[in-house]
Amino acid sequence: MEITVSRKAHFNAAHRLYNKKWSDEKNSQVFGKCNYPNYHGHNYELIVSVKGKINPETGYVIDMGELKTIIKNEIEDRLDHKNLNLDIPHFSNVIPSAENICIFIYNILRNKIDKDFHLNVKLYETPRNFVEYSGI
Amino acid sequence: MEITVSRKAHFNAAHRLYNKKWSDEKNSQVFGKCNYPNYHGHNYELIVSVKGKINPETGYVIDMGELKTIIKNEIEDRLDHKNLNLDIPHFSNVIPSAENICIFIYNILRNKIDKDFHLNVKLYETPRNFVEYSGI
Amino acid sequence: MEITVSRKAHFNAAHRLYNKKWSDEKNSQVFGKCNYPNYHGHNYELIVSVKGKINPETGYVIDMGELKTIIKNEIEDRLDHKNLNLDIPHFSNVIPSAENICIFIYNILRNKIDKDFHLNVKLYETPRNFVEYSGI
Amino acid sequence: MEITVSRKAHFNAAHRLYNKKWSDEKNSQVFGKCNYPNYHGHNYELIVSVKGKINPETGYVIDMGELKTIIKNEIEDRLDHKNLNLDIPHFSNVIPSAENICIFIYNILRNKIDKDFHLNVKLYETPRNFVEYSGI
Amino acid sequence: MEITVSRKAHFNAAHRLYNKKWSDEKNSQVFGKCNYPNYHGHNYELIVSVKGKINPETGYVIDMGELKTIIKNEIEDRLDHKNLNLDIPHFSNVIPSAENICIFIYNILRNKIDKDFHLNVKLYETPRNFVEYSGI
Amino acid sequence: MEITVSRKAHFNAAHRLYNKKWSDEKNSQVFGKCNYPNYHGHNYELIVSVKGKINPETGYVIDMGELKTIIKNEIEDRLDHKNLNLDIPHFSNVIPSAENICIFIYNILRNKIDKDFHLNVKLYETPRNFVEYSGI
Repeated sequence: MEITVSRKAHFNAAHRLYNKKWSDEKNSQVFGKCNYPNYHGHNYELIVSVKGKINPETGYVIDMGELKTIIKNEIEDRLDHKNLNLDIPHFSNVIPSAENICIFIYNILRNKIDKDFHLNVKLYETPRNFVEYSGI
Repeated sequence: MEITVSRKAHFNAAHRLYNKKWSDEKNSQVFGKCNYPNYHGHNYELIVSVKGKINPETGYVIDMGELKTIIKNEIEDRLDHKNLNLDIPHFSNVIPSAENICIFIYNILRNKIDKDFHLNVKLYETPRNFVEYSGI
Repeated sequence: MEITVSRKAHFNAAHRLYNKKWSDEKNSQVFGKCNYPNYHGHNYELIVSVKGKINPETGYVIDMGELKTIIKNEIEDRLDHKNLNLDIPHFSNVIPSAENICIFIYNILRNKIDKDFHLNVKLYETPRNFVEYSGI
Repeated sequence: MEITVSRKAHFNAAHRLYNKKWSDEKNSQVFGKCNYPNYHGHNYELIVSVKGKINPETGYVIDMGELKTIIKNEIEDRLDHKNLNLDIPHFSNVIPSAENICIFIYNILRNKIDKDFHLNVKLYETPRNFVEYSGI
Repeated sequence: MEITVSRKAHFNAAHRLYNKKWSDEKNSQVFGKCNYPNYHGHNYELIVSVKGKINPETGYVIDMGELKTIIKNEIEDRLDHKNLNLDIPHFSNVIPSAENICIFIYNILRNKIDKDFHLNVKLYETPRNFVEYSGI
Repeated sequence: MEITVSRKAHFNAAHRLYNKKWSDEKNSQVFGKCNYPNYHGHNYELIVSVKGKINPETGYVIDMGELKTIIKNEIEDRLDHKNLNLDIPHFSNVIPSAENICIFIYNILRNKIDKDFHLNVKLYETPRNFVEYSGI
């Protein structure tokens, strides 16, 4: 029997949505305000969920302090107070939509968390817009 | 691989719970305060989630602005500041419980959103009571 | 030296905004959707704040359990699941705007809470609209 | 076709994390601040979700008032304002981690809720740490 | 007797903190991550509060729809999805700290809202950092 | 002209309400569940507000990072994961009610924050009970 444990984190970043292969007109038409050239930003809220068996010695699926540290080292330190388009090489060719940021985060964490655990990542771009990904 | 995108919306409405086939006594006994004859109301919070593949041209599963417009035109404009029992024909024969409102919203949106997408609707009647439906 | 203690409560009610002295046209023009004839409703969130000296025997300004009971008996039992226009005599001649509901609540509580205490009432009609009154 | 209904509740409790079979050093090393000998505490937020068919007579999956009463009688009255390690016999041999508290609550409620319903329990230890269990 | 009415709004923007008169070293030392050259961003939450007498004809201090429109036209349309440093002339010589953005918003709104009303502006840069200004 | 800046923090602690000069019966009668002998606990949310003039060089009233560090060193490190009655000498003779904890925090911070600034401390014991103190 398995249980899911979740940890909330956050980071603040700037981005813009822009497809290099399109004209400025098409970018503006498709992405609207999100395409403004000088960037805008968000307080991203991140919820990382890990599902697995409880270790009977500790009562933990995974040590929450350890999970907090992985999220800090791998995600917050990399993305917090950054410009996603300019500072994160992955987004030089991938549009930093909430969807693509969520998958980017998932893929980094997937390599740091025991393969026996199921992983799910939820990312709030604003309190009204959010995405969720579990690699399936 | 698929990802879920969600959009939050809200509307304010009045309702009462009442089964026409029952006596007033039975209605009062089953529904308690929710049966009061002059209606009461709620700030309904609505979360619409759409799961599907990312369009690599946009980085979007679905344009959030488009989803916001569908929710506004189909749900908010129809239900906001209305009396569900009196103003919405569907609820003249169906009890406007949170469950039935959620299914009503799901069925409207299901017709407006591409069949390739999985759809899920979550409806908060109060911050402490909420329901969720995905048509399965 | 004084300290403020606050207690959060809530109630759900229906209302409409309507000035009896005006034509339907003027009511509709001034109050918009809030004037719809069949009522709509809200989850009202209420924060009651009492400011005074700490009783050194208890460490309390006022017993929170006692304050909770006063709010329940005087406000929640009176307004919860009610139609403010039809069920509350005070609002047969007073428009049940958030402002007027807040003052109505303040005046009831002012009579139930020791005059040595300063009283403040905050009322959320929605998470985005709220009012605050302290009798000054 | 089934729908999920959820009810939020809460309780405040003290606990510490401690494995009786380990030395104080190992306990301190594994559990950190959570191992402090004199206990600390949390405002636990609990979300109980029940999935099933709607009763067409009521529009309910389950009467929310009934669910609220079950949660109050079985969980809140048992755990609220208690020391989980000292006052709850189950936790004399089981470490009261969020995971184990969540399973404890699930098992109690599973016996009180109709077997035709699917049950899910979500427990927030803090707004940033939470767990979820559905017996699978 | 006066009552306060409040309206919540929001906008997303990018900024960086930078004093043109200082060296890069000093900027980095004083502003830390907030000084990163490529900008970062926030979901700013804005609460505008207006205090005044109730109009007995409407039960309103001020029409919330009107207040919402003023905030949209004057603040959201000007700041939403913008880079505060590059797109808003005022911040070419003023550091766009939460404090200075709040005063900027206050001064714009002060000119649009009746001088008989007291005005207060609260600005959340993140859920953990916020500022408040009322011109006194 | 002055502006208020606020910073949110939190700590988890155990406590019980108990007046040493009273019988167990009187303690139980006055404090109810809060008097249970084995302690219970809370996730305390703390909002520290500082009002003062803006430094035109930085756009800050006070560096939020500095304020965060003061709160961490002086309050969180002292109270987090502690038993207030047993671990904090001040509460061996003072009842650790929300009111008294708030004043305790205020007095510590008052000594660490420039006397030119006005200080206000708000403490949430639960999302429904909170207190506020500014030394006046």
